[in-house]
Amino acid sequence: MLDNGKQRADLDAVFRPRSVAVIGASDTESKIGGTPLYYLRSRGYAGRVIPINPKAPEIQGLPAYANIKDAPGPIDLAIIAVPASLAVQALQDCADAGVKGVVMFSSGFAEIGEEGAAAQSQMQDIARKSGLRLMGPNCLGFMNIEEKIFATFAPVVKAGVAPKGRIGLVSQSGAFGGFAFSVARERGIGLSYWITTGNEADLGFAESVEWLATDPGTDVIVGYMEGCRDGDGLRRALDACRKAGKPLVVCKVGKTEAGAKAAASHTAALAGEDAVFEGIFRQYNVLRADSIEECLDIAYAASIAGLPSGNRVGFYTVSGGAGVLMADTAEAHGLDVPEFTRATQDKVLEMVPFAGTRNPLDITGQVGQIPGASRKALGLITADGTCDTVVSFISAAGLSPLGLEIAEDIAAVRAQSPDVLQVVSTLPSPEFRKAVEAAGVPVFEDPNRAVKAVAALARINRGFQRTDTAPDAQPTPLTVPEACTEPLALAALGKQGLPVVDFRHVATAAEAGQAAEELGGRVVVKIVSPDIGHKSDIGGVELNLSGRAEAEAAGERILAAAGAKAPGARLDGLMVAPMRRGVAECVIGVQRDPTFGPVVMFGLGGVHVEALRDVVFRAAPFSEDEAHAMIHEVRAIRLLTHPRGSDPADIGALARLLSQVSQIAAASPGLESADMNPVLAMTDGALILDALLLD
Amino acid sequence: MLDNGKQRADLDAVFRPRSVAVIGASDTESKIGGTPLYYLRSRGYAGRVIPINPKAPEIQGLPAYANIKDAPGPIDLAIIAVPASLAVQALQDCADAGVKGVVMFSSGFAEIGEEGAAAQSQMQDIARKSGLRLMGPNCLGFMNIEEKIFATFAPVVKAGVAPKGRIGLVSQSGAFGGFAFSVARERGIGLSYWITTGNEADLGFAESVEWLATDPGTDVIVGYMEGCRDGDGLRRALDACRKAGKPLVVCKVGKTEAGAKAAASHTAALAGEDAVFEGIFRQYNVLRADSIEECLDIAYAASIAGLPSGNRVGFYTVSGGAGVLMADTAEAHGLDVPEFTRATQDKVLEMVPFAGTRNPLDITGQVGQIPGASRKALGLITADGTCDTVVSFISAAGLSPLGLEIAEDIAAVRAQSPDVLQVVSTLPSPEFRKAVEAAGVPVFEDPNRAVKAVAALARINRGFQRTDTAPDAQPTPLTVPEACTEPLALAALGKQGLPVVDFRHVATAAEAGQAAEELGGRVVVKIVSPDIGHKSDIGGVELNLSGRAEAEAAGERILAAAGAKAPGARLDGLMVAPMRRGVAECVIGVQRDPTFGPVVMFGLGGVHVEALRDVVFRAAPFSEDEAHAMIHEVRAIRLLTHPRGSDPADIGALARLLSQVSQIAAASPGLESADMNPVLAMTDGALILDALLLD
Repeated sequence: MLDNGKQRADLDAVFRPRSVAVIGASDTESKIGGTPLYYLRSRGYAGRVIPINPKAPEIQGLPAYANIKDAPGPIDLAIIAVPASLAVQALQDCADAGVKGVVMFSSGFAEIGEEGAAAQSQMQDIARKSGLRLMGPNCLGFMNIEEKIFATFAPVVKAGVAPKGRIGLVSQSGAFGGFAFSVARERGIGLSYWITTGNEADLGFAESVEWLATDPGTDVIVGYMEGCRDGDGLRRALDACRKAGKPLVVCKVGKTEAGAKAAASHTAALAGEDAVFEGIFRQYNVLRADSIEECLDIAYAASIAGLPSGNRVGFYTVSGGAGVLMADTAEAHGLDVPEFTRATQDKVLEMVPFAGTRNPLDITGQVGQIPGASRKALGLITADGTCDTVVSFISAAGLSPLGLEIAEDIAAVRAQSPDVLQVVSTLPSPEFRKAVEAAGVPVFEDPNRAVKAVAALARINRGFQRTDTAPDAQPTPLTVPEACTEPLALAALGKQGLPVVDFRHVATAAEAGQAAEELGGRVVVKIVSPDIGHKSDIGGVELNLSGRAEAEAAGERILAAAGAKAPGARLDGLMVAPMRRGVAECVIGVQRDPTFGPVVMFGLGGVHVEALRDVVFRAAPFSEDEAHAMIHEVRAIRLLTHPRGSDPADIGALARLLSQVSQIAAASPGLESADMNPVLAMTDGALILDALLLD
Repeated sequence: MLDNGKQRADLDAVFRPRSVAVIGASDTESKIGGTPLYYLRSRGYAGRVIPINPKAPEIQGLPAYANIKDAPGPIDLAIIAVPASLAVQALQDCADAGVKGVVMFSSGFAEIGEEGAAAQSQMQDIARKSGLRLMGPNCLGFMNIEEKIFATFAPVVKAGVAPKGRIGLVSQSGAFGGFAFSVARERGIGLSYWITTGNEADLGFAESVEWLATDPGTDVIVGYMEGCRDGDGLRRALDACRKAGKPLVVCKVGKTEAGAKAAASHTAALAGEDAVFEGIFRQYNVLRADSIEECLDIAYAASIAGLPSGNRVGFYTVSGGAGVLMADTAEAHGLDVPEFTRATQDKVLEMVPFAGTRNPLDITGQVGQIPGASRKALGLITADGTCDTVVSFISAAGLSPLGLEIAEDIAAVRAQSPDVLQVVSTLPSPEFRKAVEAAGVPVFEDPNRAVKAVAALARINRGFQRTDTAPDAQPTPLTVPEACTEPLALAALGKQGLPVVDFRHVATAAEAGQAAEELGGRVVVKIVSPDIGHKSDIGGVELNLSGRAEAEAAGERILAAAGAKAPGARLDGLMVAPMRRGVAECVIGVQRDPTFGPVVMFGLGGVHVEALRDVVFRAAPFSEDEAHAMIHEVRAIRLLTHPRGSDPADIGALARLLSQVSQIAAASPGLESADMNPVLAMTDGALILDALLLD
């Protein structure tokens, strides 16, 4: 929605208001209508604050008005903190008064059932008609940390505020958002905005994220999601983050059965199919984290250090053991741990003869006895050209007085080699933390968490390098033939330019024999019927047939079997196709997702799809580059890249086919689902052997 | 080694000495020979402390002796803190003086090369001859927290000591151990012992763990390992922990290529094959953790709460979102999240009508407005009988004054229902932490880490339930036949009572035809030769043959192909066997591991073993119960339990076969390796179709 400049400006008025009214303002600071007023007054908001209360001329020392329509304008933002029964009227009053944005705390709407949903729908209408933007209802509101705007009654603010920083946080759950805020505050992680979206009658998760992507004070965005009702909006928001080069880290719950059940009982939003979400996140380079801790680790590192320019990591360690552990963790999370150059190793050994130098550089605890060696050694491996990030493990030294010297060393090296990220793991004193963070160096207590955060940043960087634009080709929409059989489906796909097996559709067993002779080699003969799904189950498929006689005999058996075992089915002759061998059988599917529209699935055939559920999704359309990434996400990828007794599969051809399928899927509203199974991955090319289309 | 009562007493003298001498004692507290003396004096050790220094009559205010032989005895423990060149003589002096244990800080031995190794070997001899026990050399020593014995020069102690607790920590790396100690201290996690083993000339990681298994002050053991030279000793130690019911959590580095390289460059110990270590850990119910943070999370939870009696977890949460996240995490980590009983849900709803009650119990942030509801609701789900552990998420309330009331509630429920573990996730104040821990309730800031710790405890509990004893059967040792071919291997295995396919070994193609006729159905014909490994590659295998004529013709082709393509190979006729179909093909292997002796491997056949490396190991022998666990560890287990179009495989028969193989492997020193591939898993039974034996 923010493509429209006016709408962006509207949200600016919500998130950066120059005046804030509180409807239902209370003198009691702990009350829902007293808390935001108290926060706004006591925490230094520079704009106008206007209490609205029909019963009191003054609230918390400020002149109050009976109705927002009586208050002096213009009013950018109104907070509505009244019971549900009064909320709709209050919103209408805001609209009448020309208020630009409303944050509604009131609960008792869609989350409680039909009646509430009706009232919520009324509010939606008011917002749409008047053009005001509504956050909530049933939300905890938001905070703009820089401008000290606390449009929230979240009690966590009483214990203190997280430092100003460059991480924007958006949560569909208020309680969860409040917890994340507290954790950030306790860890000293800086935030720009904190936003909770509640029932999302108007302004939702997606638009909030999209707005943060345009906010110059926000570099990194953390999201907590339970569901999504507007797939297009979400994709626009994710795309905005990607285009702005801002890392987006999301914790999306409902992964497992228990989680999904709990989510359904908790929120009014629809939970999408998790595998599709996973695919969308991958597609838009969203880093999906499993916990709030992981979200904050990654966002913290990105907001302090930025992104590394590659995957290679070097380690500097005072403990060999910690070095091995970090190297293990790095490789397990997709980082490369290259050996330092011989020249660099030799220079380090000249200074510190007892060091292990390959990578990790195990400088040992005794390095402290050689003045200046620590900074020089770190400088050498950093300037070595072999690594994009250096992680230093200095044990508990961050707590000691010596720590500040080390902090200076690291800061100096960071400044000397600005292209290489520095990350440090130690137990830090507050002074140590401040010193390294000021130099753009994040600090982690646990060395593994430091490495995992670096791996996440490297993955985000890789994702940003990918070509994200689907080709401009506008394929003709695919129309699913009436009573679609396999030959019709294959023909339809072939007509779209997709590689399909060279098959023959014949009427009789004799013609099948003749087709076999024409095709030569071994063939397969199958029954053709729009009504028979699992052809093998009724004896409708015979494989490995050689020559006219075998094929004709097989055709007779198949027609007889179909007649006997599927008596009601419409039969449409036989299909004959050459037996083709390749590297591995794959599956490509298309389905129309209720949230995201047409999505494309890829997996390896047979047990990998059915028993092991090793499949990946993307929203259509997508580029070949994206398809490459998609293919490499299947767990059994080695079956394509390192097959036994064969050259690797032609991944390029598979990627091309997947991208083509995605474009057709996107252009064909009449295609409900497609199932290309198997698709043969060959050393040269890919071939659709069987297909099913549904409209 | 601790099977011997005397040896246990010897280690008691090391770890609980009533007198400690420091050889190389220094007046300077920061020196390696000054630090332990300082710690012993200043931190309240109640035993005698005797400085040894040839140059000073008094050190740090204590009377000193020129040589330990001059000092008044008896001396339980001596710390040697002299340069490497003096260390051997100092050790000999200790032996002569009747000292029972020595901790040697001195470095410059096996870790620096051959010369050092020779000196280390001399020290080993002195220890063996005299019966004294030697820790180190090149180690940071140990701490006995309860008795305030700081036989260490680790600088981390200067910043303070971890509280006394019930976790024993053993580390092969001093620097890593020092870091772990600091983390424990900063987190307030209580330790009983802290032990670093250095070069392990005598006392090693295994024996230290084994001794802790007998220590009444230690309930949980955390280990950090880089390698193992004494597989039997390690297995004894792991077994001692299991028998004592003490959870052992190990961080073993060298998992990946980079890690293994780094480990090899760092330590003198041999790094074993990681997959075998993984199998040994599973077998002895060792919880392998990936980081020191994870080690401490699990050990902390176990030392405060003990183990749950089952897998079922209930959630109490003030945030629906956090509830979903925890439920997701629980299921992903093998916990069950059962629905609470209807009766309990109804009772909760009576009190708190807006709660979500299935599980998680989402009591919402508003529960605070209903006095007493919080404790009652937690009590109800705890007493519901559906869960073995309840995890409560109370957001940041642990920091607020209200927190202490909640802590009391949780403690009360814990006392009422002692069979159900309680764990709480919140940002805790020190008072909150103290209150819940005193009640046996661990607290975690991050809800996911709380759930992961519970999952680990449940897994440890499951492991302790398993029958660990291998059957007493003493199979006849298997002797690998001379020039062993497939028929000889199958016959040898069959003679051991293993299920092998009903094959015929024949000399000529004509006999192969006759054998095919006798066997009936479809058969396979294969070349027999001790010199041909990959028979298919030279055309030495034909499948799916039917009747005498086909088999005979195939036999002729095979013999001709073998003569042509493997001209030097000794040929021993043909083998004919029925084609058998089952649920899935598996692989069972035996190999002699340099550290652990005979180990047994299991995997699913084909791509699962070769491309995907989906295999698991166990040390031989093991029980059927253990084999069941082993089979269920392969990632593709669903191919056996949920095959497409078939009943499940007979896992019992596979487990029986694996246990039998393990007993034969253990009883057969002449068996270097065995390869049963494929082993057919059937709906009823399992069958070895092909085998290779090596001596």
